[in-house]
Amino acid sequence: MTRQELITQIKTKKTFLCVGLDPDLEKIPKHITETEKDPIFEFNKKIIDATAKYCVAFKPNNAFYEAYGLNGIESLEKTIKYIKTNYSSHFLIADAKRGDIGNTSAMYARAFFEKLQADAITVAPYMGSDSVKPFLQFENKWAIVLGLTSNEGSADFQQQEMNGRHLYLSVIEKCAGWGNKSNMMFVIGATKAEMFEDVRKIIPEHFLLVPGVGAQGGNLQDVCKYGLNKDIGLLINSSRAIIYASAGTDFAEKAGMEAKKIADEMKIIIENR
Amino acid sequence: MTRQELITQIKTKKTFLCVGLDPDLEKIPKHITETEKDPIFEFNKKIIDATAKYCVAFKPNNAFYEAYGLNGIESLEKTIKYIKTNYSSHFLIADAKRGDIGNTSAMYARAFFEKLQADAITVAPYMGSDSVKPFLQFENKWAIVLGLTSNEGSADFQQQEMNGRHLYLSVIEKCAGWGNKSNMMFVIGATKAEMFEDVRKIIPEHFLLVPGVGAQGGNLQDVCKYGLNKDIGLLINSSRAIIYASAGTDFAEKAGMEAKKIADEMKIIIENR
Repeated sequence: MTRQELITQIKTKKTFLCVGLDPDLEKIPKHITETEKDPIFEFNKKIIDATAKYCVAFKPNNAFYEAYGLNGIESLEKTIKYIKTNYSSHFLIADAKRGDIGNTSAMYARAFFEKLQADAITVAPYMGSDSVKPFLQFENKWAIVLGLTSNEGSADFQQQEMNGRHLYLSVIEKCAGWGNKSNMMFVIGATKAEMFEDVRKIIPEHFLLVPGVGAQGGNLQDVCKYGLNKDIGLLINSSRAIIYASAGTDFAEKAGMEAKKIADEMKIIIENR
Repeated sequence: MTRQELITQIKTKKTFLCVGLDPDLEKIPKHITETEKDPIFEFNKKIIDATAKYCVAFKPNNAFYEAYGLNGIESLEKTIKYIKTNYSSHFLIADAKRGDIGNTSAMYARAFFEKLQADAITVAPYMGSDSVKPFLQFENKWAIVLGLTSNEGSADFQQQEMNGRHLYLSVIEKCAGWGNKSNMMFVIGATKAEMFEDVRKIIPEHFLLVPGVGAQGGNLQDVCKYGLNKDIGLLINSSRAIIYASAGTDFAEKAGMEAKKIADEMKIIIENR
């Protein structure tokens, strides 16, 4: 998907919500796990149908499929195919946090862009240039590099000083030089919204993927105050708060309502900016 | 596998070689890709049989399986099962470079330790404590954390200054505090052997997984000079130099010869230290 297509989607639908698909068999409603042959896919399908009109992106989290072995990977492939077939204008992010030496990152890029047909993949930057660049070689595909994550552990290295500023700012600046605003985004955690200001000084135009609104505790208004740019420039993810809004037979309906709640807030933000 | 079991293997066999299994259909001999239904598994099986007596560990590189989709994952599962069944005293490392927020790393840990039955997984440290610790909760399983990698990109962040020294030294010191020498190792690239001295000051007793002897250009003597400890404390990996030693029908025999060459050198080093 091109940058322009993504921006058009956002402006047309007036939402920049990304729904995270983190299926956990211990949290999926019992009436699905007890009756369906592929409960993960059946769960995802209903979540996707219920939330699609309120979001512009879906983000399956690879760990939650790999944990179930071959069956899990099959559920992931079916989920992606379902989205590509029925909601082809949605941006599809494989949240896989890959990154390795050049020849190995190239294999991961093939796995996610060619085999799985994802539009984007999250990339871990610790191994540097040759671990990131192979993900930038595919037309209309995206590397979403970890900048500042929303977890407690982001304090351990990302927020330590390197060359007179936080490591994550050095990472963002250096990585941004390897790609451009049309093939690269950054993960920027939402727990400290004022940090968006520093980020936007370095990359005013790039899209930011923001995890942590919802279960991880970020605040949408704060994030938008500092993170929005003229093209919106934000994809805000919510996973657990949406997909596990209910554990009953009404789970899809409740998921849709949660997604709508965020989308409604986004609509106001877009219209009033 | 326990630390003592690994040390016993090394001292008994007088080798600390790890054979990397990075199967690439473009490099696997034609007589296999053209006739076998599962060429990756058939290739691996013959490489494993030919090299097992010269090594103490095998390291499949996940990217090279994921690139082939479900079939590739199936080849990986069969390869691991083959090793576990026929060479159960070998240490099995899933080279997957995972790492995510706590609940997601926990899912990856289940995927690799419970589903795939690997003894160890390589872990990317950028996301900090809660991304690493879930891999330390399994008895006799190991997290092998990226410290200093052997690729060009290691200069971009790992070798930048943080708190007055290279980032990778801070990473090693902090991560080492989350585990111990019996559930944690570190990846230390072999291209600059003198760096092992700095690493050994911080973690004198931990095992180090050293990539880059062979195709990536490291020198075994240099690595051992600074990296060896009283328990040996090194696993030296070679992938391409062994598994692609020949593209003909003699590929397994040649792979065995390459592995033997390194193992012979290791034997002399062990006996003369």
